[in-house]
Amino acid sequence: MLGTSGNFSVVTQRDPLRLAITPSATFKGELRADQMLEMDDQAAVVHGARESRPSAEALLHVEIARARGAGAVLHTHSIWSTLLSDAHGDRGGFAIEGYEMLKGLEGVRTHAHREWIPIVENDQDIPRLADVVRDVLDRQTDAHGFLIRGHGLYTWGADLPRAVRHVEIFEFLLEAVGRKG
Amino acid sequence: MLGTSGNFSVVTQRDPLRLAITPSATFKGELRADQMLEMDDQAAVVHGARESRPSAEALLHVEIARARGAGAVLHTHSIWSTLLSDAHGDRGGFAIEGYEMLKGLEGVRTHAHREWIPIVENDQDIPRLADVVRDVLDRQTDAHGFLIRGHGLYTWGADLPRAVRHVEIFEFLLEAVGRKG
Amino acid sequence: MLGTSGNFSVVTQRDPLRLAITPSATFKGELRADQMLEMDDQAAVVHGARESRPSAEALLHVEIARARGAGAVLHTHSIWSTLLSDAHGDRGGFAIEGYEMLKGLEGVRTHAHREWIPIVENDQDIPRLADVVRDVLDRQTDAHGFLIRGHGLYTWGADLPRAVRHVEIFEFLLEAVGRKG
Amino acid sequence: MLGTSGNFSVVTQRDPLRLAITPSATFKGELRADQMLEMDDQAAVVHGARESRPSAEALLHVEIARARGAGAVLHTHSIWSTLLSDAHGDRGGFAIEGYEMLKGLEGVRTHAHREWIPIVENDQDIPRLADVVRDVLDRQTDAHGFLIRGHGLYTWGADLPRAVRHVEIFEFLLEAVGRKG
Repeated sequence: MLGTSGNFSVVTQRDPLRLAITPSATFKGELRADQMLEMDDQAAVVHGARESRPSAEALLHVEIARARGAGAVLHTHSIWSTLLSDAHGDRGGFAIEGYEMLKGLEGVRTHAHREWIPIVENDQDIPRLADVVRDVLDRQTDAHGFLIRGHGLYTWGADLPRAVRHVEIFEFLLEAVGRKG
Repeated sequence: MLGTSGNFSVVTQRDPLRLAITPSATFKGELRADQMLEMDDQAAVVHGARESRPSAEALLHVEIARARGAGAVLHTHSIWSTLLSDAHGDRGGFAIEGYEMLKGLEGVRTHAHREWIPIVENDQDIPRLADVVRDVLDRQTDAHGFLIRGHGLYTWGADLPRAVRHVEIFEFLLEAVGRKG
Repeated sequence: MLGTSGNFSVVTQRDPLRLAITPSATFKGELRADQMLEMDDQAAVVHGARESRPSAEALLHVEIARARGAGAVLHTHSIWSTLLSDAHGDRGGFAIEGYEMLKGLEGVRTHAHREWIPIVENDQDIPRLADVVRDVLDRQTDAHGFLIRGHGLYTWGADLPRAVRHVEIFEFLLEAVGRKG
Repeated sequence: MLGTSGNFSVVTQRDPLRLAITPSATFKGELRADQMLEMDDQAAVVHGARESRPSAEALLHVEIARARGAGAVLHTHSIWSTLLSDAHGDRGGFAIEGYEMLKGLEGVRTHAHREWIPIVENDQDIPRLADVVRDVLDRQTDAHGFLIRGHGLYTWGADLPRAVRHVEIFEFLLEAVGRKG
């Protein structure tokens, strides 16, 4: 997670929903556990350092945790996700299929699987962006992740190790697709 | 070996054939020696943690150990092996020649050597894939490795260090060929 | 900072201006704090090892510290900055816009921001180059950095961590733009 | 230095010429000082482990040490040197100019410097290859290094740190030229 970019969250309680999330504008390479914030489903802090705010995109984490029942959500920026989100943004997404590495995505059993990667337009109005994300998650119920155009990847998992595995798998696949051109 | 991908084996006994092999679905970066399984030539576990299964592609390791008398077999996924296996898959392989680095392959004495890299179609039916691999190994007796399409590289050696050297050599050559385009 | 390339400075006093700067021709990977030199706004050493000279481009650091009120200035060489400075040098610069990562630049609040990256021709006559740089900084008051053609990136910040963040942000953006081609 | 590829030498005595050189077929990542061999100008071992032989290309090191008065010689394999040596091999070399990084080459004072990189055809007959190299070094007296086609880079310096700097500088320049395409 380069500079202050990227963020992640872990669901700490399901009902009512609570997430531990990275604070805004923190160098993630130097992140300490006691800097994590606990927030509710309105992105209001319920525990944590008084002067900190959750990552700007906290509401997206809430939408994903709800729509997918995810236990952990990861957001990363990378060169290939940035380039592909731009190249395919006008079509609203692109498909990846035929790669063995797809089997690293939860529930996928064959390289013949066709994974559709939705792309949503970037928006600095986060509540509005959260609405768009909710809509995409509702319509693309099979997707294991999505891209925000010119911005980066969101993926998730039942727990943090599985979400990390999804990041690794997606980054491999995105680089392969991106270099193939 | 990214995520749970990739696997390797070492022949522990030749007759009857026994291989120590990585367990299925393990993060290889955290692999401990006591997680390795010993299996027979039907991929049945003869020693090791009760709840573990050998890597899904265990039968391919058996075929290679038999056909080549290899002491160690390595399977890796990489961007360049994935891209080249796709680009040349319809032709069933491609040749690499003219590179000094070819001399890192066992028995090769000159850069003028022409190494044919066979490519087999990917298949989730492993016994059927093992039959195809056996056939390729029988026909391409000079090959030091092969690719599974959209999947990755298999290579081997008399012992583990020599198999590792083959991985390094192939990855260099595949990147060179891939970037040359 | 590869080999002896690259250099950086930190403002130690504002009036009269003093900067701690890396010495010329030092391997930056092995740089010790006591090798840093303190210099005035003519690049004359006021403190430091007698036999050392400031980095050849010390006067550029002075211009940036003055024009921008920067507390730290960083100069790096990289493949992508080199390639882009060459590709766009005749036009005197190029724009980057639409990337979320732009928000890592001080004061930028939206990915819709359009960052113009000025490019100046390289020149071994440093006082003359410093004049050109001053002129560019005066005209492009919004720029967070600039490239010297075939040479590298200059960027800065209120303090060293913020200047380092700018390097990271620019290198990401330059790679994205460079690979997009 | 990947696998057993690459090698280096240091001149230990000038008259008669003696070089400490890496032994043949050693994993350089695990090289110990006591594995280095001392040889004369015929590549005959004068000190060192009885069973070891100098790197196969020892005679090229001798030619370079003589023709250039070099104190250290380095030979590396890399993707970009391999690709460029192939792309420009038929022309016998290529020029690099306009890059500030050229000033990292000994005696170069300006980015306007034009560095010609000679390329010689690869040959497994090392005495014959050494003759070709001697001829190239005699004709291209300004060259700071050369490529062997499909094989790699040779460069040198007054001492080992300066030869290492030349490797770093050349690898940067070769990548820049290679990516520029």
